[in-house]
Amino acid sequence: MDLMYELRKDPILVRWVIVAKTSRTSLSNYLVDDEKPDYQLTCSFCRGKESDTPPEIMAIRAPGSKPNSPDWFTRVIPDSIPVFSIESELNRQGIGMYDKIDGIGASEIIIESPEHHITSGGMDAEQVTRVLLTYKERILDLENDPRLRYILISKNYGRAAGALYSHPYSHLIASPVIPQRIKQELEGAKQYFSLKERCVFCDIIREEERTAARIIFENKNFVAFCPFAPAFPFEVWIMPRRHSCAFQETDKADLEDFGLAIINVLNKLKKLFKDPPYNLILHTAPNRMSRRDHWQTINEDFHWHAEIVPRLGGFTGFEWSTGFYILNTSPEEGAKYLKEV
Amino acid sequence: MDLMYELRKDPILVRWVIVAKTSRTSLSNYLVDDEKPDYQLTCSFCRGKESDTPPEIMAIRAPGSKPNSPDWFTRVIPDSIPVFSIESELNRQGIGMYDKIDGIGASEIIIESPEHHITSGGMDAEQVTRVLLTYKERILDLENDPRLRYILISKNYGRAAGALYSHPYSHLIASPVIPQRIKQELEGAKQYFSLKERCVFCDIIREEERTAARIIFENKNFVAFCPFAPAFPFEVWIMPRRHSCAFQETDKADLEDFGLAIINVLNKLKKLFKDPPYNLILHTAPNRMSRRDHWQTINEDFHWHAEIVPRLGGFTGFEWSTGFYILNTSPEEGAKYLKEV
Repeated sequence: MDLMYELRKDPILVRWVIVAKTSRTSLSNYLVDDEKPDYQLTCSFCRGKESDTPPEIMAIRAPGSKPNSPDWFTRVIPDSIPVFSIESELNRQGIGMYDKIDGIGASEIIIESPEHHITSGGMDAEQVTRVLLTYKERILDLENDPRLRYILISKNYGRAAGALYSHPYSHLIASPVIPQRIKQELEGAKQYFSLKERCVFCDIIREEERTAARIIFENKNFVAFCPFAPAFPFEVWIMPRRHSCAFQETDKADLEDFGLAIINVLNKLKKLFKDPPYNLILHTAPNRMSRRDHWQTINEDFHWHAEIVPRLGGFTGFEWSTGFYILNTSPEEGAKYLKEV
Repeated sequence: MDLMYELRKDPILVRWVIVAKTSRTSLSNYLVDDEKPDYQLTCSFCRGKESDTPPEIMAIRAPGSKPNSPDWFTRVIPDSIPVFSIESELNRQGIGMYDKIDGIGASEIIIESPEHHITSGGMDAEQVTRVLLTYKERILDLENDPRLRYILISKNYGRAAGALYSHPYSHLIASPVIPQRIKQELEGAKQYFSLKERCVFCDIIREEERTAARIIFENKNFVAFCPFAPAFPFEVWIMPRRHSCAFQETDKADLEDFGLAIINVLNKLKKLFKDPPYNLILHTAPNRMSRRDHWQTINEDFHWHAEIVPRLGGFTGFEWSTGFYILNTSPEEGAKYLKEV
């Protein structure tokens, strides 16, 4: 009997996933009937409704236009349901054998466009570059706060991915701790570097270019591919060719090429799976304070990138609770579909 | 302004989760409209259909009854869609910079009852003990195979939890690698022991009994509680009071008390959330082979237990991809509901 599955190891997380040798499912099984958040007639993120939101934290605006006036391209406001807020001290406490700290930090909404009905894939390159520039400026500002360890920027599209609004937006959480998944990645990259004295991400880019089996889009500064041992089918990583640990070290040409890669990948997923819910997560280095301690070598061993995961059908609590991922479509097959669509 | 959330650290996984200080949601927001797998008129797991399945691997039967005849209480058969199968060698290979191995192992279905419509919570104590005894015998048998590192037993109830059949069953995967989530737990427990020279789980049991704020059920040998820093609201851990790293070291009295705790917890969840989907995952030590290498000290530092996670509404891809869990109901509030229901 031929074995139907093989086990593959992610070289960063050192995690084994189970991958079907040949596809065990059809594309239609991945379609999900995801709700989009309700359309709001009086959306306060739209142009002209600026006074319905708290005052903006920053914005990219037409030259000469005033804060909170309608002539903007992107706009950042405090989250109305903040997970974290900026206040007083961290207040580290032990409770019996356990540890807790107060929810100090920041929760912000990055409004990606004044237009309600545009999707990220549907934006022109110039506007996507403005969105990325907004990400960068918020990180540069927030990492000055020594209490904050990590700034997590994500785009959650569709309810299954966690979207709360129908207007195009991204979410920023500035946190006094590093999210677990990012921490595991930082740790894995550090261990790889200490063993090989090479960046694991740079190695991955070279390997992906050598085989070309999983690459779906490339331009001068970026490469987009389905990783060798992902947690989810049709997962895509977008990586800068130039080694750099932090997204905020990008220049304008980087942001433009990164934006083109994002537009391209999102449109491929949209065509293939009929506008699926997805998460786009920016994986960047921890803030300066963290780099003084355990993450001193981060300039060498980490490499910022983005991970895009479409939230397709067929994934269950079992995989969530065990970390034992079963992929019925291999990354090579996934890449073939995404390349050709 | 009062901070609405606090960060809590899980002492085993060393993972921070975000917990609402007072509940930010009502119970009804957790209800999910989960499909149950289709009812099958001709279910081959039912009594009398034994010849429709592959020959049984083992069974608990009425005295004197023959294999594959109808007089059984529990029955184990090979999975018809095996993720792993027993065959040849592990065949470890490098592909460029990556690593893979063949999907050697075992996938088995543990049929929990000859009756189609009974739920685990609805079974009598005697039958649940038989199911647990079946788990134990399968582990004792499979851990003799030196290629296998871990035997993962789970019960997935409802489609959102990964159930494929409407007949009551559990799923067994015997794997040449340790699932990531279990590995992180083993590693965390090992580090705690090397620091404190105490088992972290024994410490947790003492702490939970001291405060009593999160305990929902107790008997002589087991305690069930909502953990201090879980990934999901209403998550419940069931732990044996007696320190032991492996489920298969249990005796009959242990299994009876464990069974009563399971029945109790499942019925509480069923009442509170109208028969929700859930995962019950057995967390036990890796197989003997693994204990010769990195896990030599496992007898001292690990403590087997079960984790039950109801798959309630409101969780999204964002949390899955970042490991940044946000709980809008604290474990103390969750425990209060579960205790009183």
